[in-house]
Amino acid sequence: MVRFKGFDFVEGGVCAAKGFTAGGVIAGIKPGNTTKRDLALIFSTERCRTAALYTTNKVKGAPILISKEHLKDGYARGIIVNSGNANTCNPDGIDIARQMCELAARELEVDSTDIIVGSTGVIGQRLSIKPVKNAISPLVKSLSENGSSYACEAIMTTDTRKKEVAVEFDLDGVKCRVGGISKGSGMINPNMATMLAFITTDVAINAELLEKALRKVNSLTYNMVSVDGDTSTNDTLFLMSSGLAKNKEIICEDKNYEIFENALYAVMMNLARETARDGEGATKLIECVVSNAPDEKTAKSVAKSVVSSSLVKAALFAADANWGRILCAIGYSDAEFDIDEVSVELASINGKIKVCENGAGVEFSEKTAKEILLEDEIKILVDLNAGESGAIAWGCDLTFEYVKINAEYRT
Amino acid sequence: MVRFKGFDFVEGGVCAAKGFTAGGVIAGIKPGNTTKRDLALIFSTERCRTAALYTTNKVKGAPILISKEHLKDGYARGIIVNSGNANTCNPDGIDIARQMCELAARELEVDSTDIIVGSTGVIGQRLSIKPVKNAISPLVKSLSENGSSYACEAIMTTDTRKKEVAVEFDLDGVKCRVGGISKGSGMINPNMATMLAFITTDVAINAELLEKALRKVNSLTYNMVSVDGDTSTNDTLFLMSSGLAKNKEIICEDKNYEIFENALYAVMMNLARETARDGEGATKLIECVVSNAPDEKTAKSVAKSVVSSSLVKAALFAADANWGRILCAIGYSDAEFDIDEVSVELASINGKIKVCENGAGVEFSEKTAKEILLEDEIKILVDLNAGESGAIAWGCDLTFEYVKINAEYRT
Repeated sequence: MVRFKGFDFVEGGVCAAKGFTAGGVIAGIKPGNTTKRDLALIFSTERCRTAALYTTNKVKGAPILISKEHLKDGYARGIIVNSGNANTCNPDGIDIARQMCELAARELEVDSTDIIVGSTGVIGQRLSIKPVKNAISPLVKSLSENGSSYACEAIMTTDTRKKEVAVEFDLDGVKCRVGGISKGSGMINPNMATMLAFITTDVAINAELLEKALRKVNSLTYNMVSVDGDTSTNDTLFLMSSGLAKNKEIICEDKNYEIFENALYAVMMNLARETARDGEGATKLIECVVSNAPDEKTAKSVAKSVVSSSLVKAALFAADANWGRILCAIGYSDAEFDIDEVSVELASINGKIKVCENGAGVEFSEKTAKEILLEDEIKILVDLNAGESGAIAWGCDLTFEYVKINAEYRT
Repeated sequence: MVRFKGFDFVEGGVCAAKGFTAGGVIAGIKPGNTTKRDLALIFSTERCRTAALYTTNKVKGAPILISKEHLKDGYARGIIVNSGNANTCNPDGIDIARQMCELAARELEVDSTDIIVGSTGVIGQRLSIKPVKNAISPLVKSLSENGSSYACEAIMTTDTRKKEVAVEFDLDGVKCRVGGISKGSGMINPNMATMLAFITTDVAINAELLEKALRKVNSLTYNMVSVDGDTSTNDTLFLMSSGLAKNKEIICEDKNYEIFENALYAVMMNLARETARDGEGATKLIECVVSNAPDEKTAKSVAKSVVSSSLVKAALFAADANWGRILCAIGYSDAEFDIDEVSVELASINGKIKVCENGAGVEFSEKTAKEILLEDEIKILVDLNAGESGAIAWGCDLTFEYVKINAEYRT
């Protein structure tokens, strides 16, 4: 986890902020599942200003269509989510997604348009409402301030670890929190990593700035993650604000807005980074840091190109300092700069080594490079020597296990 | 191989057209190589009008820079090519590439600017001129009208099979030929598959139309192949015309031009298709045929998106009819159309099955689908129901072997 000054990590995940509870139960969404939690609920004591971002895929899961409808007024109180079935490309998907909201709303005694919904799993298989119906009462009973990790487990598919982060910080002497949970492991690529992410905060902030912060931070975090280049149909990112921290409401882009945005970055950047680390089959987190770019767009394009290259990813799986492939991926990125000015370093906790300068290889110790690359967190530092902008992108290595998981997923 | 009416397949590959000889020898480009041919030469008795296309990567191999220089006058007589080292990102690469041309030219007694050059293999390792120097005399001696397959072997890297195609056809009663050899297996993506391709013809055609035909046919063939999404630094495509068929020179876009373009398509389409089939680690050729698109650009974008999807590729490796992933890849293609109009069929020599209609799944027999997908040539038929344009793209499945090859390539 990457720490940021002024922001302390705290426990509680999506329930760390005041007003939120969560829970997760085994509903048996996938026929035969009797061991893994697969239905989650996040609930707020208050109606929350809620900002949302969705997949850019033209194929959009039914839950997205219903959530959009229910967020027309900008407010929500609860999120119901299942794993095991994406409820996408089904003839009755929209009806099922709506029923999920209605079932939760009835049990929670709230308006059904205050419930939003997410689904993740296989595409194009009908989702039966029955397991949801049977599990809704125990699910609502399971809601607790300690329930974040149960909800987090319930949204996992091929994820191998839970992704939960929360931070505490200070706004004019008032303690505030932002926290969240996230899932995503395969079918991960911009725009937005394939993922569900649910972020909550108790910061009071107006709707416009809540959305602005979400867009900005998403562009720097989830949009900079690539596992396999496939953009999912179900990517969903919700940010709910209860306002219960009782700070003076943020209504302009002042210092407090900046602090809030940074807190959101601290949470979402760490969630996104963990998503890359947990890429399907991954053994390594790859972080590409581009510096001295002529502009941010160029920096982003280069960083993304490097972490998306199958050949770079396969080489790093083998801890092979194949800098030629890195330079090649820099070269085919959709950006304009002088390749002859580019230098590349590889780094990990074991040290740092320059492998490329002025667009050509330099002599380096293969032994040292190997030591650096055998670590499970690798940095690729790309200096474009052409300006003052930068960007970071995250990815993972390409392994036998990735192929295995995705050759077997549906069956 | 796909047959086209009016074009007969003939033997001879890159030497099928009148005036061309080729050869290949074991030079030991990669230290320790004593068993595989790794230095090739193609030679013409005449100075040939030569059209060329190169990688769009900003990192361009030194051989490309020298070939561009030598083709300024539009003519060439010979092509020297090595495998085992890409001669790219090396401080002395340009000098080495120039020396390769000079060595060949001296031995062939031609002007060194009439020799063009290609290299393929690992990036960023110095290429010693010594093995080329030692092998140049035997290489020139090896030139023969039967030498195509030796040259073809000498340009292979991780390729598992030779790609050679030649066709014969008729222009106003004159027999003409187009033939070629190609290599490429990994680091393959538009624009231009990562590959070297050398095409020769005896058709007399002016320079402008020669280039025009090459561009057009390339956009429909090599540019529609994707193995792994990585665009190489060394992609090179040469088309040499000796004019020795003695047809009336093609100087406008008449019927004969059209026949020539179709002949070029028959050769390059089959070479490109074989390149996809021979993708690193591939067990299956995947052909995505998009029909009824509003325009060609949309059709191409959708077709490419499908064959490039890691998730589709992994599913097909497992012969899994995971149509949801196909629809998802159609959905994130960079094109505008109504996803609710889309239908998808899967086909192979074992039959055809509809898996998706109006953007949603339809019931189908998993058993029949499995039988279709167990074949080694799979067609994905995408009907956009939105117009009259079409496109075809070629790719392959994603396998354990791909990861293995690319985790071990450099070391």
